[in-house]
Amino acid sequence: MKTILIYDIPDDKKRKKIAEACKDYDLHRIQWSAFIGRLNRNLREELMLRLDKILGEEEGDIKLFPICNKDLKQKQEIKR
Amino acid sequence: MKTILIYDIPDDKKRKKIAEACKDYDLHRIQWSAFIGRLNRNLREELMLRLDKILGEEEGDIKLFPICNKDLKQKQEIKR
Repeated sequence: MKTILIYDIPDDKKRKKIAEACKDYDLHRIQWSAFIGRLNRNLREELMLRLDKILGEEEGDIKLFPICNKDLKQKQEIKR
Repeated sequence: MKTILIYDIPDDKKRKKIAEACKDYDLHRIQWSAFIGRLNRNLREELMLRLDKILGEEEGDIKLFPICNKDLKQKQEIKR
Protein backbone atom coordinates (compact mmCIF):
# COMPACT_ATOMS: atom_id res chain seq x y z
CA MET A 1 0.00 0.00 0.00
CA LYS A 2 1.30 3.48 -0.75
CA THR A 3 2.50 5.09 2.45
CA ILE A 4 3.25 8.71 3.36
CA LEU A 5 5.83 9.39 6.04
CA ILE A 6 6.30 12.89 7.48
CA TYR A 7 8.61 14.03 10.24
CA ASP A 8 9.80 16.94 12.37
CA ILE A 9 13.30 16.14 13.66
CA PRO A 10 15.21 19.10 15.12
CA ASP A 11 18.60 17.34 15.23
CA ASP A 12 20.35 17.51 11.82
CA LYS A 13 22.25 14.21 12.17
CA LYS A 14 19.18 12.29 13.30
CA ARG A 15 17.08 13.85 10.54
CA LYS A 16 19.66 12.74 7.95
CA LYS A 17 19.66 9.17 9.31
CA ILE A 18 15.85 9.10 9.32
CA ALA A 19 15.85 10.20 5.66
CA GLU A 20 18.43 7.55 4.75
CA ALA A 21 16.37 4.85 6.45
CA CYS A 22 13.32 5.95 4.42
CA LYS A 23 15.37 5.62 1.21
CA ASP A 24 16.52 2.16 2.33
CA TYR A 25 12.86 1.17 2.28
CA ASP A 26 12.44 2.58 -1.27
CA LEU A 27 10.47 5.60 -0.16
CA HIS A 28 11.19 8.68 -2.25
CA ARG A 29 11.26 12.22 -1.01
CA ILE A 30 8.30 14.44 -1.97
CA GLN A 31 9.15 17.37 0.31
CA TRP A 32 11.99 18.22 2.73
CA SER A 33 10.42 16.20 5.52
CA ALA A 34 8.03 13.97 3.61
CA PHE A 35 8.46 10.65 1.81
CA ILE A 36 6.14 8.35 -0.08
CA GLY A 37 6.44 4.75 -1.29
CA ARG A 38 4.90 1.30 -1.32
CA LEU A 39 5.11 -0.60 2.01
CA ASN A 40 3.13 -3.59 3.23
CA ARG A 41 2.12 -3.91 6.91
CA ASN A 42 5.30 -5.79 7.91
CA LEU A 43 7.59 -3.29 6.21
CA ARG A 44 5.69 -0.40 7.82
CA GLU A 45 6.21 -1.99 11.24
CA GLU A 46 9.85 -2.76 10.47
CA LEU A 47 10.56 0.80 9.28
CA MET A 48 8.91 2.42 12.28
CA LEU A 49 10.93 0.17 14.66
CA ARG A 50 14.10 1.23 12.87
CA LEU A 51 13.16 4.93 12.97
CA ASP A 52 12.31 4.58 16.67
CA LYS A 53 15.78 3.13 17.28
CA ILE A 54 17.48 5.87 15.22
CA LEU A 55 15.61 8.62 17.06
CA GLY A 56 16.54 7.16 20.42
CA GLU A 57 15.72 9.64 23.19
CA GLU A 58 16.02 12.68 20.92
CA GLU A 59 13.08 15.01 20.36
CA GLY A 60 11.10 14.21 17.21
CA ASP A 61 7.74 13.53 15.62
CA ILE A 62 7.33 10.90 12.92
CA LYS A 63 3.95 10.05 11.37
CA LEU A 64 3.21 7.30 8.89
CA PHE A 65 -0.03 7.20 6.89
CA PRO A 66 -0.94 4.29 4.61
CA ILE A 67 -3.13 5.65 1.80
CA CYS A 68 -5.17 3.59 -0.66
CA ASN A 69 -5.18 4.24 -4.41
CA LYS A 70 -8.74 5.53 -4.34
CA ASP A 71 -7.74 8.26 -1.87
CA LEU A 72 -4.48 8.91 -3.67
CA LYS A 73 -6.38 9.73 -6.87
CA GLN A 74 -7.93 12.70 -5.05
CA LYS A 75 -4.53 14.12 -4.17
CA GLN A 76 -4.03 17.78 -5.14
CA GLU A 77 -0.78 19.66 -5.59
CA ILE A 78 0.60 23.17 -6.10
CA LYS A 79 4.26 23.24 -7.14
CA ARG A 80 6.39 26.22 -8.23
CA MET B 1 -13.21 13.29 4.65
CA LYS B 2 -10.09 13.71 6.76
CA THR B 3 -7.43 15.50 4.77
CA ILE B 4 -3.68 15.86 5.27
CA LEU B 5 -1.98 18.97 3.91
CA ILE B 6 1.82 19.27 3.81
CA TYR B 7 3.95 22.05 2.43
CA ASP B 8 7.46 23.32 1.76
CA ILE B 9 7.36 27.12 1.53
CA PRO B 10 10.76 28.86 1.71
CA ASP B 11 9.36 32.38 2.21
CA ASP B 12 8.50 33.01 5.90
CA LYS B 13 5.62 35.45 5.23
CA LYS B 14 4.00 33.18 2.65
CA ARG B 15 4.42 30.16 4.89
CA LYS B 16 2.68 32.01 7.74
CA LYS B 17 -0.23 32.99 5.47
CA ILE B 18 -0.54 29.43 4.20
CA ALA B 19 -0.72 28.15 7.80
CA GLU B 20 -3.35 30.77 8.68
CA ALA B 21 -5.45 29.77 5.69
CA CYS B 22 -5.28 26.13 6.82
CA LYS B 23 -6.54 27.17 10.28
CA ASP B 24 -9.35 29.15 8.65
CA TYR B 25 -10.52 25.85 7.19
CA ASP B 26 -10.39 24.18 10.65
CA LEU B 27 -7.31 22.16 9.88
CA HIS B 28 -5.06 21.70 12.89
CA ARG B 29 -1.31 21.54 12.85
CA ILE B 30 0.27 18.11 13.39
CA GLN B 31 3.82 19.09 12.49
CA TRP B 32 5.62 22.32 11.50
CA SER B 33 4.55 22.00 7.90
CA ALA B 34 1.66 19.58 8.16
CA PHE B 35 -2.04 20.01 8.94
CA ILE B 36 -4.98 17.65 9.21
CA GLY B 37 -8.74 18.18 9.32
CA ARG B 38 -12.10 17.29 7.82
CA LEU B 39 -12.77 18.78 4.35
CA ASN B 40 -15.31 17.77 1.72
CA ARG B 41 -14.45 17.96 -2.00
CA ASN B 42 -15.69 21.56 -2.41
CA LEU B 43 -13.75 22.81 0.62
CA ARG B 44 -10.62 21.02 -0.61
CA GLU B 45 -10.95 22.76 -3.98
CA GLU B 46 -11.69 26.10 -2.31
CA LEU B 47 -8.71 25.82 0.05
CA MET B 48 -6.30 24.87 -2.72
CA LEU B 49 -7.48 27.84 -4.85
CA ARG B 50 -6.88 30.14 -1.88
CA LEU B 51 -3.43 28.67 -1.20
CA ASP B 52 -2.58 29.00 -4.89
CA LYS B 53 -3.51 32.68 -4.73
CA ILE B 54 -1.52 33.23 -1.51
CA LEU B 55 1.57 31.55 -2.97
CA GLY B 56 1.36 33.65 -6.11
CA GLU B 57 4.56 33.30 -8.15
CA GLU B 58 6.69 32.40 -5.10
CA GLU B 59 8.50 29.07 -4.89
CA GLY B 60 6.59 26.41 -2.96
CA ASP B 61 5.21 22.89 -2.83
CA ILE B 62 1.81 22.16 -1.32
CA LYS B 63 0.29 18.65 -1.30
CA LEU B 64 -3.16 17.69 -0.13
CA PHE B 65 -4.13 14.08 0.56
CA PRO B 66 -7.70 13.04 1.46
CA ILE B 67 -7.49 9.93 3.65
CA CYS B 68 -10.37 7.62 4.55
CA ASN B 69 -11.00 6.41 8.11
CA LYS B 70 -9.99 2.85 7.22
CA ASP B 71 -6.53 4.07 6.17
CA LEU B 72 -6.31 6.52 9.06
CA LYS B 73 -6.72 3.64 11.52
CA GLN B 74 -3.43 2.22 10.26
CA LYS B 75 -1.58 5.43 11.02
CA GLN B 76 1.57 5.00 13.12
CA GLU B 77 3.40 7.62 15.17
CA ILE B 78 6.62 8.19 17.11
CA LYS B 79 6.58 11.30 19.26
CA ARG B 80 9.15 12.48 21.83
